[in-house]
Amino acid sequence: MIIITQPNATEEQIDRVVARVREFGLDVQISRGASRVIIGVIGAEDRIREKPLAAMAGVEAIVPLEKPYKLASFEFRGAAAPVSVGRVKIGGDESVALICGPCAVESQEQISSIARIVKKLGANVLRGGAFKPRTSPYSFQGLREEGLRFLAEARRETGLPVITEIMDARDLAMVEKYADCLQIGTRNMQNFSLLKEVGRSHLPVLLKRGFSATIGDLIMSAEYILSEGNMNVLLCERGIRTFENATRYTLDLNAVPILKAKTHLPVVVDPTHGIGLRDFVPQMALAAVAAGADAIMMEVHDSPQFAKSDGEQAIVPEVFADLVPRLRAVAEAVGRRM
Amino acid sequence: MIIITQPNATEEQIDRVVARVREFGLDVQISRGASRVIIGVIGAEDRIREKPLAAMAGVEAIVPLEKPYKLASFEFRGAAAPVSVGRVKIGGDESVALICGPCAVESQEQISSIARIVKKLGANVLRGGAFKPRTSPYSFQGLREEGLRFLAEARRETGLPVITEIMDARDLAMVEKYADCLQIGTRNMQNFSLLKEVGRSHLPVLLKRGFSATIGDLIMSAEYILSEGNMNVLLCERGIRTFENATRYTLDLNAVPILKAKTHLPVVVDPTHGIGLRDFVPQMALAAVAAGADAIMMEVHDSPQFAKSDGEQAIVPEVFADLVPRLRAVAEAVGRRM
Amino acid sequence: MIIITQPNATEEQIDRVVARVREFGLDVQISRGASRVIIGVIGAEDRIREKPLAAMAGVEAIVPLEKPYKLASFEFRGAAAPVSVGRVKIGGDESVALICGPCAVESQEQISSIARIVKKLGANVLRGGAFKPRTSPYSFQGLREEGLRFLAEARRETGLPVITEIMDARDLAMVEKYADCLQIGTRNMQNFSLLKEVGRSHLPVLLKRGFSATIGDLIMSAEYILSEGNMNVLLCERGIRTFENATRYTLDLNAVPILKAKTHLPVVVDPTHGIGLRDFVPQMALAAVAAGADAIMMEVHDSPQFAKSDGEQAIVPEVFADLVPRLRAVAEAVGRRM
Amino acid sequence: MIIITQPNATEEQIDRVVARVREFGLDVQISRGASRVIIGVIGAEDRIREKPLAAMAGVEAIVPLEKPYKLASFEFRGAAAPVSVGRVKIGGDESVALICGPCAVESQEQISSIARIVKKLGANVLRGGAFKPRTSPYSFQGLREEGLRFLAEARRETGLPVITEIMDARDLAMVEKYADCLQIGTRNMQNFSLLKEVGRSHLPVLLKRGFSATIGDLIMSAEYILSEGNMNVLLCERGIRTFENATRYTLDLNAVPILKAKTHLPVVVDPTHGIGLRDFVPQMALAAVAAGADAIMMEVHDSPQFAKSDGEQAIVPEVFADLVPRLRAVAEAVGRRM
Repeated sequence: MIIITQPNATEEQIDRVVARVREFGLDVQISRGASRVIIGVIGAEDRIREKPLAAMAGVEAIVPLEKPYKLASFEFRGAAAPVSVGRVKIGGDESVALICGPCAVESQEQISSIARIVKKLGANVLRGGAFKPRTSPYSFQGLREEGLRFLAEARRETGLPVITEIMDARDLAMVEKYADCLQIGTRNMQNFSLLKEVGRSHLPVLLKRGFSATIGDLIMSAEYILSEGNMNVLLCERGIRTFENATRYTLDLNAVPILKAKTHLPVVVDPTHGIGLRDFVPQMALAAVAAGADAIMMEVHDSPQFAKSDGEQAIVPEVFADLVPRLRAVAEAVGRRM
Repeated sequence: MIIITQPNATEEQIDRVVARVREFGLDVQISRGASRVIIGVIGAEDRIREKPLAAMAGVEAIVPLEKPYKLASFEFRGAAAPVSVGRVKIGGDESVALICGPCAVESQEQISSIARIVKKLGANVLRGGAFKPRTSPYSFQGLREEGLRFLAEARRETGLPVITEIMDARDLAMVEKYADCLQIGTRNMQNFSLLKEVGRSHLPVLLKRGFSATIGDLIMSAEYILSEGNMNVLLCERGIRTFENATRYTLDLNAVPILKAKTHLPVVVDPTHGIGLRDFVPQMALAAVAAGADAIMMEVHDSPQFAKSDGEQAIVPEVFADLVPRLRAVAEAVGRRM
Repeated sequence: MIIITQPNATEEQIDRVVARVREFGLDVQISRGASRVIIGVIGAEDRIREKPLAAMAGVEAIVPLEKPYKLASFEFRGAAAPVSVGRVKIGGDESVALICGPCAVESQEQISSIARIVKKLGANVLRGGAFKPRTSPYSFQGLREEGLRFLAEARRETGLPVITEIMDARDLAMVEKYADCLQIGTRNMQNFSLLKEVGRSHLPVLLKRGFSATIGDLIMSAEYILSEGNMNVLLCERGIRTFENATRYTLDLNAVPILKAKTHLPVVVDPTHGIGLRDFVPQMALAAVAAGADAIMMEVHDSPQFAKSDGEQAIVPEVFADLVPRLRAVAEAVGRRM
Repeated sequence: MIIITQPNATEEQIDRVVARVREFGLDVQISRGASRVIIGVIGAEDRIREKPLAAMAGVEAIVPLEKPYKLASFEFRGAAAPVSVGRVKIGGDESVALICGPCAVESQEQISSIARIVKKLGANVLRGGAFKPRTSPYSFQGLREEGLRFLAEARRETGLPVITEIMDARDLAMVEKYADCLQIGTRNMQNFSLLKEVGRSHLPVLLKRGFSATIGDLIMSAEYILSEGNMNVLLCERGIRTFENATRYTLDLNAVPILKAKTHLPVVVDPTHGIGLRDFVPQMALAAVAAGADAIMMEVHDSPQFAKSDGEQAIVPEVFADLVPRLRAVAEAVGRRM
């Protein structure tokens, strides 16, 4: 950490800052420039990072030098590390996985039928929501435990491991009975109580980026889970909120190479929410693979006009069938396989 | 609701859309323009609002005509309605309340001392966090029940009712024992499980706007609480995330008159987080009162350089003392009192 | 400037960085921390600020210490300095000015009639566009020189000085013949050719913030004008583009105290564009005065439903008449006058 | 266009709206719903689109049905249409072009050397700035005509056609003497005077998206150029401004398929500015090709640490050499060639 003083800081103010740093068992190195003093803090800066030094008289700015996360950092592992969802390995820089299914589980027939279709066409993991975070209290909120049972049955039929969203820490034991991977949705990315709870689960966690979370925020939320002992976290870029209104969100593919450089965690991209218009989901899925994504998560629905949620953005099986070989070709073009 | 067809929609496609609308017991009125057909839906559109009609072939756009919220709407009451926090009435367009205190409760001495100071200088309600949502799992997370006890003791000493944040539905019964008003933080504005739970509390709820939530999203989150039976919700503008980086957030004062036109709920403004720099909090507090806020929530700390969180943005008692008469003067200039 | 090296930077890399700094006649002070080297640059950093040091091997980050602007900085004058528009002084922290008129000049009768009305109700300066930057090439583009003549005639009749937009450097001589103050619109805030040109004018310049410009960008654009010799610049906050869609733009009143702390230039606020909905312009004008604005610029039109542009956001004379005494009361409440 | 009335609109108000529409020679079709009247406007709505009907009493909302642009629309041509830059055809959905070169032209030796390198490695077009729009008036502003001459000489040596930025309408004749394609920079995307001027040039125009322009704004700016007679416009996505700060801008690849669906114009992507960090430019270039871009524009510099501008984001020839075959493989994977 570097503490930069104001041009008019007094010696007394500087002394108080130095004394405050030393209270935390850290030493300082002082450089005097033309108009400012630079106080370099020596030692593990996490002991002092959160202290409001910037509120002290005479201080202009604080420049942290160490990352605020440890367990999530690339350096912690030194390589991209895969996470297993059921028997499917995601990440580790070789194969690219396909996570597909409807937005919401609606019936046994619906989820089983879609599971069979996507399995046959090349999907590796089945997704489907039993608890749905909806903007309106009057919208369909999911089938809850019944939906989880339908998912488990679809897994039994197809062998596809199952990812499903958890919204409430009190449902954890129930969801763990049925699912292979927990999903934390975009609106709960900074629900720290929930993050801590899934950090104590034996299941891997797919953590969706908050639609207004910075890349740094996303990594810190992963750190919450890791710091409770659960090292199996997948990061998911799913579009951020910007001024653009021709699309539902702005898919931030920049996040893919940045996350892969900063962390060892697998990076999943969800082009369905990221653009929000089914006609353009395929192009964005292709772009995500080219950018280096470890998995693509897409909504596929066999009759989107009757879907209970998000029908406008789900692609139909015919489109998915046409897309898979092109995804495979792009994966190979960038040295991966699918 | 108006359904607008694509220029090249076929009669068969239009018939299918009409049939789908009628399945929900609604009637239609069809207008044929030069190149499109406009299908007006007659009847209560909430029966069909969430259906994915836009995914049907031949449909270009759906224009909803009714608001997606009811209980929160201005029309539901026909007037701005006050909400009581302890014995303090907030809203209803007359007086402007001051909600003050430290970011986090740190000790009995700290909270009692600040409570006495702000009470003497004119505050009406005491704020302080016992559960702190922190971006980093390694930061101070709050004193939990001990902090709640300190708050309750500060209330006993000063008579100020107490607002404090709740982050986890499982803590509700405990927080209800000590607090006069529950706060939902910006990161939990769309934690729908928590919203439903506080919707069943007997305490009023101060709902902070998500830093990337639209005004419409905020009202829908209030509707979640109201729809569970708790009609005592205060809406709080606290700054949104934008590209601007000279300030911590961008305080969106536009939201004040808009929320007061769209809902009957009291509107609180938090200039402390909204600008994030203590030197400029007073100007934004004054602006908030002029824009029509029903209450101002501010962090006041007697030694911000030692605060355990957010010290950089808390104002000191001297600044607060200087500000209160100016706030009162602006309140009177716009026909309110403080 | 501080140069921070990567944890694994070699001595050779560090030497090359130091040598590069010295090439520009600057000296360095080196501090060695646990894992990094901090290179403090001694001397006037503007000699080296723009050099791509961050592209050198071994460099992690560059922290500038000096502001990139000089003439616009508060320190350059040491006090808020007024700028004269005709005989009206704006800024300098005493009175608050009112700049009013229609969006576009439409006819002699229209501009003269509105000028008389707003003059009588308390306006100090007349605004009106003769050149209109419109998103569509098919929209009304302004009356050009004829509009300027109408403005000059309205000034002759009422004594109000005139502000009007210039969009093209080639029109400068023409606009200078008629106007008292040049306006640079939001879309031209970084049209550097135009900025340099008006920097050589004898007229003051009202510089509108680009709707996606940071506060820092705005000050740098002002610096362009000042650096050509024209020291009479007014900065205008007029709303920024965010994700919020209930309003046309998000009026960033945070910018008012920040700009007044960073520069000596007068700060004008345009609530008309900042919220874009005429019903809510008055509240935002009041808030702008409370936040410390030196002038309020508002669109007033006597028959907005017939306006050739932006009719939806102009207020009518009756609303303006009702607003002025309230603006005056708020100005007095914060120690100003109107 | 559809005009939706307020629930409490009077018959008299509705009559006035209808009369106003008829004044413009358009007819109406009226549908009466439960609480509102829907007025469908029959006829070419561009006659009335810009009129402030929303400012009329009783009107709640206006829903336009026709696009505000014509010449730029996909329907105008019915297919993606190529634009020629020198002898290089860009667009039309077959090959993908590479536009490479330094940010700024710095010397004959520099531009010729880089031109030879990128030509050999596979580039089709040379880029380089002779006029540089810089945030600071104190930064390097370009070599102006001398830079243009250096570019022309590099073209003579390599055969690569040349793209260069124009910032001021008064420089058009000069730039036309040397360049093969005019570039409008992000800060001038809504400099309508300049757009009209280049709309009368015989050279093609590469129009960069304003970093806060919506996709709709970009198309309207293209329409300005087309409406003056110059049909040779290339649209360039180069990153938008968002809250994310780990990258310089957020590259909005969603814009690629959306622009290709809405217009017939070629779509160019600039990953250099779009992410702003040279280590991650290759991944984003690959993603852009996969998303369907017709050309990739990249900064390549042989010694970025000495570049006079933007050195931090330029890639070096070795990286470019490694990237080209991968770009080619991705292009082929999505049915294109390079």
